Amino acid sequence: MTGRLVLHEYSASGNCYKIRLTAAHLGVPLERREYDILKGETRTPEFLRDVNGNGRIPVLQIGGRFLPESNAACCWLADGSGLIPADRFDRADMLRWMFFEQYSHEPNVATLRFWLEYVGEAALSDQQRAQIPARRAAGEAALAVMERHLAGRRFFVGDALSLADIALYAYSHVAHEGGFDLDPYPAVSAWLANVAAVPGHVTMND
Amino acid sequence: MTGRLVLHEYSASGNCYKIRLTAAHLGVPLERREYDILKGETRTPEFLRDVNGNGRIPVLQIGGRFLPESNAACCWLADGSGLIPADRFDRADMLRWMFFEQYSHEPNVATLRFWLEYVGEAALSDQQRAQIPARRAAGEAALAVMERHLAGRRFFVGDALSLADIALYAYSHVAHEGGFDLDPYPAVSAWLANVAAVPGHVTMND
Repeated sequence: MTGRLVLHEYSASGNCYKIRLTAAHLGVPLERREYDILKGETRTPEFLRDVNGNGRIPVLQIGGRFLPESNAACCWLADGSGLIPADRFDRADMLRWMFFEQYSHEPNVATLRFWLEYVGEAALSDQQRAQIPARRAAGEAALAVMERHLAGRRFFVGDALSLADIALYAYSHVAHEGGFDLDPYPAVSAWLANVAAVPGHVTMND
Repeated sequence: MTGRLVLHEYSASGNCYKIRLTAAHLGVPLERREYDILKGETRTPEFLRDVNGNGRIPVLQIGGRFLPESNAACCWLADGSGLIPADRFDRADMLRWMFFEQYSHEPNVATLRFWLEYVGEAALSDQQRAQIPARRAAGEAALAVMERHLAGRRFFVGDALSLADIALYAYSHVAHEGGFDLDPYPAVSAWLANVAAVPGHVTMND
């Protein structure tokens, strides 16, 4: 109906994993096309012209159209499904946590993972290295916000898995790769287990 | 039906203006409660407990419930209205530009405006001052992405005003306060005029 779905991705990216996890829960098959972001493969003239002028993955290709931004792609896939709450407030609250994820969580928790686990500390620029303490503190602050919200809850919104959980799970479950210790966040740890236990779950390496 | 709507805000913030502009287009009245973020009024124990554990404005209070994140609040207000496209792809594409705004635009274009126009360059920390060149470059890159998309278009998605335009207008129209010159971006400048010409528009100072 909508043509083939192709995920343009770097598979180790949590932003790309979000889309695969959403598709898995929905039973929707995705073709996958891998780019090596460490070699600049998403900044070529062809990629910028044909896939995403912002030079980033993931991009969900829907027939002949291209949808950048991981959380927007998840919303397209899940449109009309139980992964988006039916209640008006809950639906907006789901988006609230997805915007929180992109603004307060991903730039800190995901960036430190990428710098420390993929680029390597020795290869960082002086400017990147100087940002580590501030990003560490902001990442801990994001995890603390999640911890307070999750105390006494099974999922972020209502009592069922939604895109808010999928968006925040992607980088939270590998936060240790960025040097974040989740031991001080027991509610976050319990929630990670709740998300992974939902039937249909796939891991980052599936 | 949903109780009173109270916007907890710092009125000079573009993120807060987005919500007022959305409400104005919808003809929905908002009560407004001002906080001085320069005096830490959104980091008090009361604010963190009762309004937003993330210590940020804006927050849209809907009866007794609180909805942080500017773009989520706009989505709640505009739910079911013409500010959100009816087409599935266009609706996701609107969210794509709203996530772009929070990830690639706001942290650069809005942060430099806040630092240079509100905090003042002399009052910045060394760490903040060191980040200016990278945020300047990333802000110019975001404006360039907008310029390429807007060439030949009146609005970001389809041919009508949507929340994507409102979200990106908020800080783009005051980008000069952060030292961004819009002369190299004629399509962005024309689009700013298109947005301001839509009946129902209000300015940041209304």
